[in-house]
Parts: sequence; C-alpha cells; structure tokens
Amino acid sequence: MVEEKRRGRPRDEQVDGRILDAALELVLAEGYDRFSPDGVAAKAGVAKTTLYRRWPTKDHLILAVVTRMQNEVEVTDTGDLPRDLTRYLDEIAAGLNRMRKAGRPQLAGDQSAGLIAEIAAAAARHADIGAVVRQMFALRNKVPIGLLARARERGDLPEDVDPEVLFEQLAGALYYRVLITGSPIGPAYVQRLVTTALSATPAANRRKS
Amino acid sequence: MVEEKRRGRPRDEQVDGRILDAALELVLAEGYDRFSPDGVAAKAGVAKTTLYRRWPTKDHLILAVVTRMQNEVEVTDTGDLPRDLTRYLDEIAAGLNRMRKAGRPQLAGDQSAGLIAEIAAAAARHADIGAVVRQMFALRNKVPIGLLARARERGDLPEDVDPEVLFEQLAGALYYRVLITGSPIGPAYVQRLVTTALSATPAANRRKS
Repeated sequence: MVEEKRRGRPRDEQVDGRILDAALELVLAEGYDRFSPDGVAAKAGVAKTTLYRRWPTKDHLILAVVTRMQNEVEVTDTGDLPRDLTRYLDEIAAGLNRMRKAGRPQLAGDQSAGLIAEIAAAAARHADIGAVVRQMFALRNKVPIGLLARARERGDLPEDVDPEVLFEQLAGALYYRVLITGSPIGPAYVQRLVTTALSATPAANRRKS
Repeated sequence: MVEEKRRGRPRDEQVDGRILDAALELVLAEGYDRFSPDGVAAKAGVAKTTLYRRWPTKDHLILAVVTRMQNEVEVTDTGDLPRDLTRYLDEIAAGLNRMRKAGRPQLAGDQSAGLIAEIAAAAARHADIGAVVRQMFALRNKVPIGLLARARERGDLPEDVDPEVLFEQLAGALYYRVLITGSPIGPAYVQRLVTTALSATPAANRRKS
C-alpha cells in the first residue's frame, strides 16, 4: 500500500509534492550525510508521521526525490537521432551533475559521486530499496530504449544493434564516469559519446537537415 | 609513503600478499558489513599494527584487494577485436559477479551490487579513497583503451570512434547493470554488448579466421 499512489486524492498528492520539493532542496543543499527527514517535515510544514508513513527512511525519501527528478527528463523523438540522443543525454548528465554536487556546491572541482553512490549503496544494502531502484529504472529506461528501437526500425541504426544494450552503453558511460573514474560529464563529453556510439551508423553519416 | 610499494623489499611484499590473500577470501565469504581487518590479520598471521600501517581502514584494505583482482585481468591483443574484447569483458564481468555475491554465496538470484556499491560509496565519502579509486582505474583502463586504439589504427574501428569513450561505454554497461538496474552480466550479455558495440564496424563485418 505504501508504494501505491492514490490517484483519486489530489490533496495527498499536493502534500507529497510539497514534501518532495522540500526534500530536493534540502538534499541538494546539505548532501547525504547531513540530510534528515525531520528537517524536510519542518520545511514542508507537515507532521513527521505523515512523512514517515509515506517514506519510512531517509533512503526511501531521497530515492523518491531522485525518481521524480528522473521522471521529469523528457525524451523528444524528432526523427533526428543524433540530436534527440544528445538532448536526452545532456539532461541526464545535468541531473547527475546536480546530484554529484549535492551538499558541496562550493566545491566546483569535486568529482565525487556523492548522492548517486549513496543511493547505489543503499540499494545494495536494503532489498526493498534495491527493488524500488530497479523498478524505477526499468520503467524509465523504456522510453529512451523505445527511441533507439524506432531509429533502428527506420534504418538509422544497424540491424544488429540491440536497443537495450545501446542504451545501457550510453547511460552506463555517464554513470561509470560519475561512480568510478570521477571524470567530468559535461556537454563536451556527451558530444563525444553520441559521436562514438553512432559512428559508422547510417544516422551519423547522413544527418537530416 | 603509504602508497609507495617498496619494490626492493620482497619480504614486505610477501607479507602484503599474505594479507591480501586472506582479505580476499574473507571479504568474499563475509561481505562488506561483516568483514573486519582484525579477522584478516588473524587469518594472515600478522600483527594488527602491520596491517593497519599499510591499510588504515577497512575501505582501504578492500580497495587494495579489488585493485589486485582487477590488475590480474589480462588484455590479449590477437588482432581479432571481437574475440579480444569478448575475452576481456568476460573476465571483467566474472570479477564483478564475484564481488556482487560477496558475503551471500547462497543467494544465486540476488542481483544486488554488494561490494562494488560499497566501494563507490566509500570513494564518494572519503576524498583519499576516491583519489586511490580514480588513480587505480585510470591506470588499469589504459590497457583496454590501447587495444581499442590499435584496432582503430588498423581500420577495425571507424575513424570517429573515440577509444576512451568506447571503453567507457563497454565497461559502463557492465557497471550500470551491476550498480543501477541489477540485471545479470553473464557471457550472454557480454556477447550482446560486443555485437552492439561493433555493429556496422569493419571488424564486425569481416572477422578474421
């Protein structure tokens, strides 16, 4: 029941939205360690019990914030694959960079994985959080995978490209830099990524105008 | 001085090796939470002070174990790119799967990221560990990136493929599955990955016999 959002009750959703707005602002400002659901309840003006009934731990709450942030990233399918992919990956990278800097906006050069690593670790430690993370990504990733599948159908990707795997290569490269090598993932990197991924594909060789 | 291995003193290296052997065995058996450097010192038959002088925290010790494991993965360059890549990625995936199962060998179906997520989180939390992780991967990744660069030079990859980025797409897809989606990374996935990455490249189309 905790997972099921009651769509028929807009008042609850308004409260949820207020809590998640406050949580996003606080987690970006404070980072993982200092972030506390109690502070979120105070900032959102709701009772702690309301918050904890919906999100029983700090990790559940942070995860809900990240889910909402990721669901807001739109996939545009104009039929121009390099452009559509670049736009999508730029947004994903921007979201990852925000989470990377959570709690230390002053450290521009800090390449730590921050919040993202904490979520991955929480997902590894707690089976229920792991299940929510995996479900969230499975749902969300269907959209960009669909974009790649349609591009293949119209001949803009080679036949033996597996759309799911290509998506994992693209998203994976961004997460690999954030979580493992600590390298930057700005627009210049996204450009290199799209160019390499689409090299020698029909889409890369005859861009639509 | 802690980072610098004194190559001229084989006795130290023997002790190091014994400690890391014991640590590998224990961390795979016990998992991150239950793993303790004290247990490693006892198993290896060395004084705790010897161990802590070299690896001041549990995270430093686990990281040293993982570094050694990763350095043991060899890159073979036979000139047959699909085969060389498959062999390399199969080994990387096997190592990740061992770490994924650390501490819970009984849970065959458990897709949790386990140890790998803990290392990523430790790297995010502690600047010195983050620096060691990044340095380790930067060094190690030069070898497979070199394999891809040579393949491009001899015309087995398109000119506009960036070897570093292609490597990050391949390794990234594996880590993305382990850390984010929890999907399996067995030989069947590695095969899909290599096929998709090399689709429409000369290497994929004219395999050497």
